[in-house]
This record gives sequence, C-alpha cells and structure tokens, in this order.
Amino acid sequence: MAIVLRQSEPDFETRFSAFLATKREVSEDVDRAVAEIIHRVRTEGDAALIDYSQRFDRIDLAQHGIAITSAEIDAAVASAPVATVEALKLARDRIHSHHLRQMPQDDRYTDPLGVELGSRWTAIESVGLYVPGGTASYPSSVLMNAVPAQVAGVERVVMVVPSPDGKLNPLVLVAARLAGVSEIYRVGGAQAIAALAYGTGTIAPVAKIVGPGNAYVAAAKRRVFGTVGIDMIAGPSEVLIMADSDNDPDWIAADLLAQAEHDTAAQSILITDDEAFGNAVIAAVERQLQTLPRTETASASWRDYGAVILVQDLEASLPLVNRIAAEHLEIAAADPERFLAGVRNAGAIFLGRYTPEVIGDYVGGSNHVLPTARSARFSSGLSVLDYVKRTSILKLGVEQLRALGPAAIELARAEGLDAHGNSVAIRLNL
Amino acid sequence: MAIVLRQSEPDFETRFSAFLATKREVSEDVDRAVAEIIHRVRTEGDAALIDYSQRFDRIDLAQHGIAITSAEIDAAVASAPVATVEALKLARDRIHSHHLRQMPQDDRYTDPLGVELGSRWTAIESVGLYVPGGTASYPSSVLMNAVPAQVAGVERVVMVVPSPDGKLNPLVLVAARLAGVSEIYRVGGAQAIAALAYGTGTIAPVAKIVGPGNAYVAAAKRRVFGTVGIDMIAGPSEVLIMADSDNDPDWIAADLLAQAEHDTAAQSILITDDEAFGNAVIAAVERQLQTLPRTETASASWRDYGAVILVQDLEASLPLVNRIAAEHLEIAAADPERFLAGVRNAGAIFLGRYTPEVIGDYVGGSNHVLPTARSARFSSGLSVLDYVKRTSILKLGVEQLRALGPAAIELARAEGLDAHGNSVAIRLNL
Repeated sequence: MAIVLRQSEPDFETRFSAFLATKREVSEDVDRAVAEIIHRVRTEGDAALIDYSQRFDRIDLAQHGIAITSAEIDAAVASAPVATVEALKLARDRIHSHHLRQMPQDDRYTDPLGVELGSRWTAIESVGLYVPGGTASYPSSVLMNAVPAQVAGVERVVMVVPSPDGKLNPLVLVAARLAGVSEIYRVGGAQAIAALAYGTGTIAPVAKIVGPGNAYVAAAKRRVFGTVGIDMIAGPSEVLIMADSDNDPDWIAADLLAQAEHDTAAQSILITDDEAFGNAVIAAVERQLQTLPRTETASASWRDYGAVILVQDLEASLPLVNRIAAEHLEIAAADPERFLAGVRNAGAIFLGRYTPEVIGDYVGGSNHVLPTARSARFSSGLSVLDYVKRTSILKLGVEQLRALGPAAIELARAEGLDAHGNSVAIRLNL
Repeated sequence: MAIVLRQSEPDFETRFSAFLATKREVSEDVDRAVAEIIHRVRTEGDAALIDYSQRFDRIDLAQHGIAITSAEIDAAVASAPVATVEALKLARDRIHSHHLRQMPQDDRYTDPLGVELGSRWTAIESVGLYVPGGTASYPSSVLMNAVPAQVAGVERVVMVVPSPDGKLNPLVLVAARLAGVSEIYRVGGAQAIAALAYGTGTIAPVAKIVGPGNAYVAAAKRRVFGTVGIDMIAGPSEVLIMADSDNDPDWIAADLLAQAEHDTAAQSILITDDEAFGNAVIAAVERQLQTLPRTETASASWRDYGAVILVQDLEASLPLVNRIAAEHLEIAAADPERFLAGVRNAGAIFLGRYTPEVIGDYVGGSNHVLPTARSARFSSGLSVLDYVKRTSILKLGVEQLRALGPAAIELARAEGLDAHGNSVAIRLNL
C-alpha cells in the first residue's frame, strides 16, 4: 500500500520533506569495473568489444559482426506487424512535426554603436544513441532520442544496442530505420559507451552520447563526459496526478499503474482534495493490480514509493507540486488551464481528463525523455537543443574599437591582465 | 618556443592528431577529500563551513560572519575607482542587452487533429554562483555569470567567494551588486559547493550551481550533479587565430599573449598561410614577453602549448579549425565573413582585424564563459538558456484521444506494457 499524507495533520511538513528526500535508486558501486572496461576498449578497440560481448552478452561478435547490416534491418522491417509499423510511423511523424518547432533561430544584428553581434546554431556532427537490451529495449525510446537528432541535422546518428544471447528486439531496428539512424552496432554496457567516446577499428567516435542505460552505462557516461557531451543521467520514471473528485477512480488508477509497471523504483503519486475519492483510487489500484501481467513490478513500486497526498484545496497544493517537480504531471480537473500558471517545475504537463500520460509516451509528439528525481527544478526534457550548439559572433570596426576599447583596457588593468589591455591598446595606438 | 606544424610536411596529420590529443590539465586526485568535505557540510552545516574556512582560508567566520553584509558591499562600491565602476556598468549593460535577445519564446499551438501542444519556459528559482578567490577573482566573470541569470528571471542568485586571509577583491562585490546578486557568502572550495547543494543553517540550498573553480570545486560539482544542476566544467582558456599576412604581427602576438597570460595551461594557436608572417609573429611574441608583467605565466603557456600551424591556404584550413574546436576563434583576414559558413565548431568567433578576443572578455556583450578543450564540438557558451527550463504541455479531448489512442495501445502492446495500454483503453471503452 502506498503511503497517505494528509496536509491537515500537524506533522505533514516533516513527512512531506522526508518523502521528497527518499532515494529511489540503488547506487551500485560499479565505478572501478567501468574504469577498467573503458581502459581496455581504448587500448584494445574491437578486440575488447568482442571479449566483453562474449562475457556479458554470451554472443560471439567475431562471428556475428559488430555492425548490424542493412540486410538484418530489412529482415526486421519485413517481420514486423503492419499495425505496429504504422503506429511507429505515426509516432515518428508527430515527434518530427513537434520538434521542428524547437529549431532555434540564428540571430545577427548591429547595435547602436555599430558593433555586429550574433548567435549561430549548428548541429553536432555525430551523436551516439544508447539503447538498452532485453525487456527495456523500447522502439518508442529510439524514436524519442533519434528523431530530434534528425530534425537538428546531425549527420551521423550511431546506435548501440546489446544483443544478449543473440536476441534483439526487431522493433528497435525498425524504429532506428524510421528515425534515420545511420549506423547500428550490437554492443552494450560500458564497453559500448567507451567505443562511442573513443572509437575502435569498427566504430568511429562521436561527439555526444545520449540515451538511458543501467548503472554501468550511467557510470561510463559520467566518466567520458568532457571527452564527449552526454545527456542527463535518467533515473526511474514518475508521475504526479492532481485529480478532483469528478474523475473516474478507475481512470486515475490506470494512470498510476502505467507508471508503476515500468520499474519497481518507479513512483506514482496522487494529489486530491477529496479523501473518499482518494480511497476509491486506492481500491481501484488494488483491483487492477490483480489482472495486470506486470503486477509484480507494479505492486512493488506502488507499495514502496506510491503516495496519496490529501489536501484541502487543489489550487493551494501547487507549492507541493512544485517541490515534487515531477517528470510527468497530470492535471485531471475541471478547467485544468487555471492551474497551469502556478506550475513551475515539471518535465511535462498533461491537461484534462482525456490526456493520460501514456499518450505522451508514444504519439503525442512531445518528447518522453524527461527530467526525473526532482531535476525538473533545473533541467528540461530532451529536445532539438540537445543536438545543436551555439557560437557567438562579434565584429568591430576601428570606430567601434575606439568606442569600447578604453573600457576593456580599464577592466583588464583592474584585473591585473596587462596583455589583455595591450591587445586593445596596440590597435588604437594607446 | 611554441611548436610549428607545417601542413606541407608528410607527417603533418600524425603530428596534428597528437597535438589535438594533448591534455593541458593536471588531473589532481582530490575526489576522496571532496567526498569527506561534502559529507561534513551535509551533517554539520555552518560549523563545517567555519572549520574548513579556518583551515583552508585562515579566516574565522564565527567572528567575521558567513554572509557578507550590505554594508560591506556599500564600502566596496565606495572604495572602487569611478572609471572601473563605469566600465563595469558599460559591460553589464551590454551583456544585458545581448542576453535579452536569447530569451526563448513559449510555444502553444493546436495541430490539425485538434491536439494542443506546447513548450513553456520558466526560470530556475535559485542559482549558486561560484567565484574563485585570490588572483583569479574576476569581476568580469561575475557579470558574465550573473547577468544572464538576472535576464532569465532567477529570483535568488547566491554568490560564494572565498576570502583567503580575509582578503576579498572589492570589485567582485561591486560587480555582484551591479548584476543583481541577492546573497553573498565568504566561503569557497568544495565546502561552498556542498553548502549551495544541500544548504546549511545560514545558506539555503539552490537548484543549480555555475561558475569556474579549482580541482576541488570541479570535483565537488561533479559529485552534487543530480541533486542540483551544474554548468560545464571549464578547463584552461584557449585562442585560435586565423591570420593572413596583411596583419601587423605585433597585433596578433598581443592577442596570443592575452590568452597565454591567463594560465600556464592556457593555449594560443596561430594558423597562417605565410611562413614569413608566422615567423614575424613568433618574433613579436618573444619581444612582447620581455615587458609583460605576467611573463612567467605567459612564457610557460606559449612554450608548452603554443602552436603555429602553417597551411597552404587559409580557406582550406577550415577542417583543421573545426577539429581544434577552439573556445575563441579570431579570423583576422580580409573579408572574414567568407570563412564564417565553413566554421562549425567554435565557442565564439571574432571577425576582422579590429575585434581582438579581449573585447569579448569584457564589453562586447556576448558571454565569455565558453566551451574549452574541444567541447565546442558538442556544447555552447553560457546563455540565458542555462537559467531556464522547458516544460512540455499536451492536451487532448475525447476526439483526439479516439484518433491517437489506438496507435498508443498498439505500441504499448508491442512493448509489453499492458498498464500503459489500459490507461488509454479504459477512457475509450476499448
């Protein structure tokens, strides 16, 4: 059973703070192993990839090949159910349209002094996309990570995905093709991250690595950060649902469980102003859990991390919502827009009774790679901006240098940087 | 003497690759010490700050106070030379105007199906700004870090700056006031980062930490990343100058030395198509070094990391420029614009003979916090975007859910996530 927190009770603040501070991730100490793996890939290249894949994935890449061939992708596409491929295409197209609107505009202008300034955006040249193997090998995540790169104009989108015991989700290959992935390699774990960062005989290095992975992958990404760019380190998923009592408790329960089935460390939270409704949702969750195929995962998540927060007034609960800073926030209430201005910290907001978060996971068009573990306080979901970078441009003529130079010389002097001052003074004969 | 690389020589590619791979940072192993410092600040709060400041900065904060008072800032402003304050104001205003143009626009729209989508930007609520003490305590860096936060609308901008032996650069306080910094604390090192991330009795925690620091500060930022956001980990500064033979060798030498005087690990590189001009610049560098106050630092930087790259043709050297991916790129050539389209990787570009990089350090208006160590391949300079975050918005009615729901259910089924499917199906009676 999820915990119940009542705002009316005197120890609410203490309990709410403790709830916020709960860590949901088991921190495995894998750093030493990862350092060794990266070192070997850097020094031995493909041979290390072959060795680690044999050991960890029980597959002989010397025989099967590190690269996945175009023929293998063709076969995956041919074997995929038509309905699934059509749904992936719909998702791809909607993600593409939405992300096109995120393309930043270059800006070049001349200020009143005649100084030319500018900001110019260019795509990162090459990006590596990590895709987990096994049960968390989701084609939807391939689309969410790869389509924005395609929209940004990244030339080389390189995917790595482990193939434990030779198994590979063919839909992941289908999604990769739909999203314009240019190369795919059947390697995973820290060794795949090392290969993307430093390159091997087969895999040319990339400039940035994105995508979710296990503790080894996350530790490897932290280690190679600097040599390449990385995206955020994603934690377990979470949903926060603000719901009034006019909702069908079964709908809200279904949404809580959609989150809980992801992972035993996932978190589902309901905020409501009606205790009877809250109890009805709890009962509906218990009922639905009985028929759910992934009931074991969902039950553990709901038991260990689920929460029902009872407040006097939904609108007055917005400060709590902002402190939780959820990855996903559903506002299932009459006139949901009235809450919108008060929500400051959330990865994505789903408005109204007919916008279950699951639509955002697949076909809404917005990105499902979102900040977890309260990081929506300071970071954003994945977007085209993660695949571009900005260069500043500055251009002065002699008149502009005469106008601004003396102030630069003054500041250089104040900072004790004489050579800085010289580089301006020498041009002005000062 | 800097190294000279000639593109015409057969081993150029090997030597250039080795040059690119040169590490300029001494990696100190400070991680264990930093972990201990963070732990103590988390458990002991202000008492740990007082203890570490006594030990590392030889100052008694129990007596002087952790917070810098408004009266102390008033005194700093009163003591500052008028010309310096005026120059700081000019810099502040120009940075403010330029960064205003970077404010991202919210986007809310309805697609052809009637689905409402949106991206909404909000300021991060609180930001911590680290400012180094001692000789690298630069007021210009305070402006560069704080003004974009002010433009973004960050409410709490908290500055920390160590005060070794009780000394503090008063201009840093002046710059903080000009840039709207709301709180200042005289603590530094890993202990200041821990205080910003976790809070103490005196210092309330922030959501994100920015600003340069030494190896301890950098290691502490890496460790608290996740609990708070961090900016990039800045390395030593660098400049790459593309210059034709029509430049005054002394001007170009002055620009190379402005970079070299920063740090013995700073790097200054000249690319030119004229060997005689290259030699003239080298001679001018040696000559100017003799009168430079910071000649020791600048000489070591030029000797160990300086480089002159001789190419047949400047335009054809753009692939080398993009591989170097310099923090600062000067294009000191006739019609510098013609090179612009070919430059892909650079933190900032300075065009023409009258735009020394130093203008960008102080009063150009663009930001001087830029990606170092080749990271311009995948990252951007500091901007307003570093102080805001984006929330996605999605809103469907029953008709839109009918249109998109079946595809979501199909993908949920394909991914084995039945509860995901249920949360859509239950609303459509499917």
